[in-house]
Order: sequence, then C-alpha cells, then structure tokens
Amino acid sequence: MSSLTIGAVCDPEDEILVAEPYYTNYRGFAHLLGCQVVPVPTFAKEGFKVSPERVRAAITSKTRLLVVPSPGNPTGAVLSHQDLQELGSICMDAGIFFVVDEVYREFVYEAKGPDALAPSVLAVPGLEEVAIVVDSVSKRYSACGARIGCLVTRNEALYQACLCFAQARLSPPTVDQFAAEAALRTPRNEMRANIAAYKARRDVVVQGLNEIDGVSCPCPAGAFYLVADLPVDDAEHFCRFLLTDFDLDGQTVMLAPASGFYATPGAGRNQVRVAYVLDIPALKRSLAILQAGLQAYASYRIES
Amino acid sequence: MSSLTIGAVCDPEDEILVAEPYYTNYRGFAHLLGCQVVPVPTFAKEGFKVSPERVRAAITSKTRLLVVPSPGNPTGAVLSHQDLQELGSICMDAGIFFVVDEVYREFVYEAKGPDALAPSVLAVPGLEEVAIVVDSVSKRYSACGARIGCLVTRNEALYQACLCFAQARLSPPTVDQFAAEAALRTPRNEMRANIAAYKARRDVVVQGLNEIDGVSCPCPAGAFYLVADLPVDDAEHFCRFLLTDFDLDGQTVMLAPASGFYATPGAGRNQVRVAYVLDIPALKRSLAILQAGLQAYASYRIES
Repeated sequence: MSSLTIGAVCDPEDEILVAEPYYTNYRGFAHLLGCQVVPVPTFAKEGFKVSPERVRAAITSKTRLLVVPSPGNPTGAVLSHQDLQELGSICMDAGIFFVVDEVYREFVYEAKGPDALAPSVLAVPGLEEVAIVVDSVSKRYSACGARIGCLVTRNEALYQACLCFAQARLSPPTVDQFAAEAALRTPRNEMRANIAAYKARRDVVVQGLNEIDGVSCPCPAGAFYLVADLPVDDAEHFCRFLLTDFDLDGQTVMLAPASGFYATPGAGRNQVRVAYVLDIPALKRSLAILQAGLQAYASYRIES
Repeated sequence: MSSLTIGAVCDPEDEILVAEPYYTNYRGFAHLLGCQVVPVPTFAKEGFKVSPERVRAAITSKTRLLVVPSPGNPTGAVLSHQDLQELGSICMDAGIFFVVDEVYREFVYEAKGPDALAPSVLAVPGLEEVAIVVDSVSKRYSACGARIGCLVTRNEALYQACLCFAQARLSPPTVDQFAAEAALRTPRNEMRANIAAYKARRDVVVQGLNEIDGVSCPCPAGAFYLVADLPVDDAEHFCRFLLTDFDLDGQTVMLAPASGFYATPGAGRNQVRVAYVLDIPALKRSLAILQAGLQAYASYRIES
C-alpha cells in the first residue's frame, strides 16, 4: 500500500518525508520508484513525537508526501487528534499529501472502552484532500503472511491514479480476501481482550527494561514495539554477540538493532527495537537474559 | 515476477522488447519503473512466430531485455528449442537478457507422453548468463488468485539484485505457499488428462472459428488462448455490441478485443482473443452465438 501511494503521487527525484526511526521498507519502496526518503528525526526523550517544526523545516519544493505511522513501528508512539491536525495543516499549506499508516489502530493502551482506537487522520476535518490512510489486516489479526491491505483517500484524482495501479496489479490473493473478510467480523470485545494482554506485556517489558542498569525506554502508547537505549556503543554488534557468543542456561534473546530504522548516519546506534509479542513468563525470562547478556558483554568488551 | 525482472535489470529510460501481441500488464510494469516497452510484431499468417530478424532490428543501445512468453498469451504460439537458441544467441550478442515467460509450460498439444512440456530456455546450452524464466502456479493449477511465482536465473549478479527486491517485498502470501506446495505434487498423468481436455477444446474452437465466414485463426500449439481475425473493422466495437445489443435466445459471448494486446497503433483492430476454458458444449454454443452475432452486426452496421 505504501508502494502504491508513492507510485500514485510521486515522480522520480521527488522526496518523501518519513518520521524517523521508521519501517525500513519505506526506503526500499521509495528507492524502487526513484524517490528519496528524507528522515524527520524523533527522539526517545520526546517520546518519539513528530515535531511540527522539524517537519516544516524539512519540506522542500520536491516534497510530495509526509508519512507517519500511528501507532508507530518501531517506536509505539501514537499521534493525538491535535498532532494529526497540526501535521495535516502543515501538509495542506505545503500542498503535499499526509499519509498515516494506521495498521496498528486497535493497539492503543491508554484509551478505554470496546471501541478504543488510535485517533485517525480521516476524522480530522479539513484534511479531506490531503489525508491518506494505509491499512492492512496482518497486524490486527496476527496474519503476517496475509497480503490484504487498503488505501483510503477522499481525493478524487488520487483515487483515479490508484485505480490504474490496482488494475495493473490485478487482484490480491483470493484466499486471503476470504480470510480477511471473516477476520473483520471478529467481535470488538474479543479484540479488546487481546489488546489488554498486549498492554500487560508492554507494562512488564517497559518496567523491566528501565530497571536494568543503563537501559531506558519511553512507555509506548500503542503498537507492540518499543525502542530502547542500551549501554552499548554498537547495538548491532551486541545483538550479534547475544546470538553467537552468549547464553543463559542454553537460552538467549534476539533483538532488532535500531540502526536499520534510521537513515540519518550514526543515529540509533545504541538502540534496539523490542517486539513484545510473547507471553509474560517468556518476556520476564527474556529480560533476565538481556540483563545477564549486557553484563557479559561489558566484560567481553573489556577483555577484547 | 515480470515486474521484479524489470526492476532488477533496467534503469529508467531503458527499453524492453516484447513480442507483440503481448500480455497487457508488461506495459504497466515497465511504465511504473520508467521503462519503455518496444513491440516486436508477430503475425497470424506466420503463426505468430517471433522473427529473429525483427528482434535484431529492434535492438538499440537502450535495450536491456527481450521478453517472450512461450507458450504465449494471447497467441498460443510455442517456441521450439531452435527458436529459443536463435533468439537467445541474438540476446547474447547484444548483451541483453532473454526472459521467457513459461507459465503455460504444460499446456502443449503436439508433444506426447506424460512429461510433455514446452521447450524451456533453461535447457538451451550456452544461454546460462542471459536466460531468465518467469513462472507462476496460477495457470497450471487453475489458481488465478494465487500469488505465487518464481524467477529462475543462473546469473549470479542478477540473482543478488533479485534477492534485494525479494527481501523488500517480504514474503508472498503464506496460505498460497502451502497450497502451491501441495499443488506441485499433482501427478503428471492427471495433469496430462487435463491438457488432453484443453486440446479437445482447442480443436473444436479452431475448427469452428475457421468455418465461420470471414473468420480465421492459426491453430495454437499451446496455452489456452488464440487470436482470431474477424470480418469487422473495429473488434472492440463488435465486442461491445455483443454485450449490449445482441443475444441469441437470451445468451451472448464475451470476447477480449485484441487491440489491448498491441502497442503498435492500429494493430490488431480486427482481432479478438479467445480463451477456450469452457467445456465443449459451451464452446460449441459460443461458436453458434458468435456466428449469429457477426451476421447481426453486419446488418446493424449497414443500418446505422
């Protein structure tokens, strides 16, 4: 869907602003179509909020899109209705589209009630011509290999352009279409029970991480990821060490080095992305392994 | 898969030679990546064979690929081992890749035995560095909505480039992967029984069409399509007439105007593509309807 959006909106050489750290594949999709991803940095100490000032400063005559996932991968940050309004109004003024990747819409932990959802850009009045939502069933229903998504726009010209691309693409997989239709009938309260389980996981992981010496992370308001600072120079090297040179009673943990989510050189080098998708006992055990791994890594670095 | 090939091999502005008439989506895939499709015409009177001379004449410094489906959509033409050798050697000399779309490989009607297959470019010695096969399970197992295909190359640099694209694309649909794996275990003789049914259908349609006044088509050696000349100026107009202004006892036929398969202006205007995928009684009835439709259309044209 992101690829479709870029194809429908951009010409080669155009620029796409993306809140950084960002879903790595945005860069691949853009590159394939000859476009540049321009990162708009966000920071752990600001809870990874997207700053309107930094967005405004990054817009050039080549900018065609601002892309922000909310709830976000990898940071878990959730944009408020007001955030969406502010960013959307900057896009309106600049004459660019505002793409919000809302695939984790249901995964919000502060909102209450069976209909709790992340604020949607579609609900912000006045953005009808510039707001684009990209969505997918994969995250919502743990259907990673399903290839069913959608793009929502009220912009007639964009709709027509997307239709051309969709016709060239023929159809998404048939079986997945039937499965998605059935999945969409999942009762809301069942979904909320699932979200409550994720919230409990998040709380265990956030508390556990912040209790480890030198580790810190903001508490994400949505999705099922977080980005944590580790007391290491090179998180990629540490992640590899965990897999090849370390174990705690025969077990280890695999973390995603966050540098792959950054385009800014050197950014995120001490960070990792954590996906809290296991059950609580496994998460607690993982935290213990990570803590022991960090201690072992400190000795290993001194020795080597 | 065709899209992947173009992405991996071509830069924007590059040219792709395609035997014409061709599968319409090649043009969409190419356009999306900023490349040009350059048609190499083939003709009914030559059984839609791809002429080595015309290929050689069409190659320029911008040409990166020659794409030929065999067995072909929409013509049903099948390249012989010698055809593949000749075309492949032209590609070798020109330093371009030779892409053969072999999705209809099993659908050949002149070869005998349970292992009968269309000649493959992979079996032509000396073409290892330039031959590319694109394939899919969709046609072979009547699984139109399955989104599982592959690209085969022995060229190491191309393989690495394709791997980058594949990693950006993540995975094809999971359920379809399992289904494809099961389908690939279909016994060969079962497949051949299926092919025999298609052959019988082909024979009925080819004979029936050539018996209609003013209609002609070569007998296709493979796939399940054919391109027929009709005694009309504008086949698209005639096809529309069949759907909107004609019926025989409440029934009509839908044909694909062939002009959509041509990039050369004006080419194929009197042609239609026929897919002979129904059972024989339905095909016979369709031929009768087409014959009546052509008669009615002739009167309709004189009157209007």
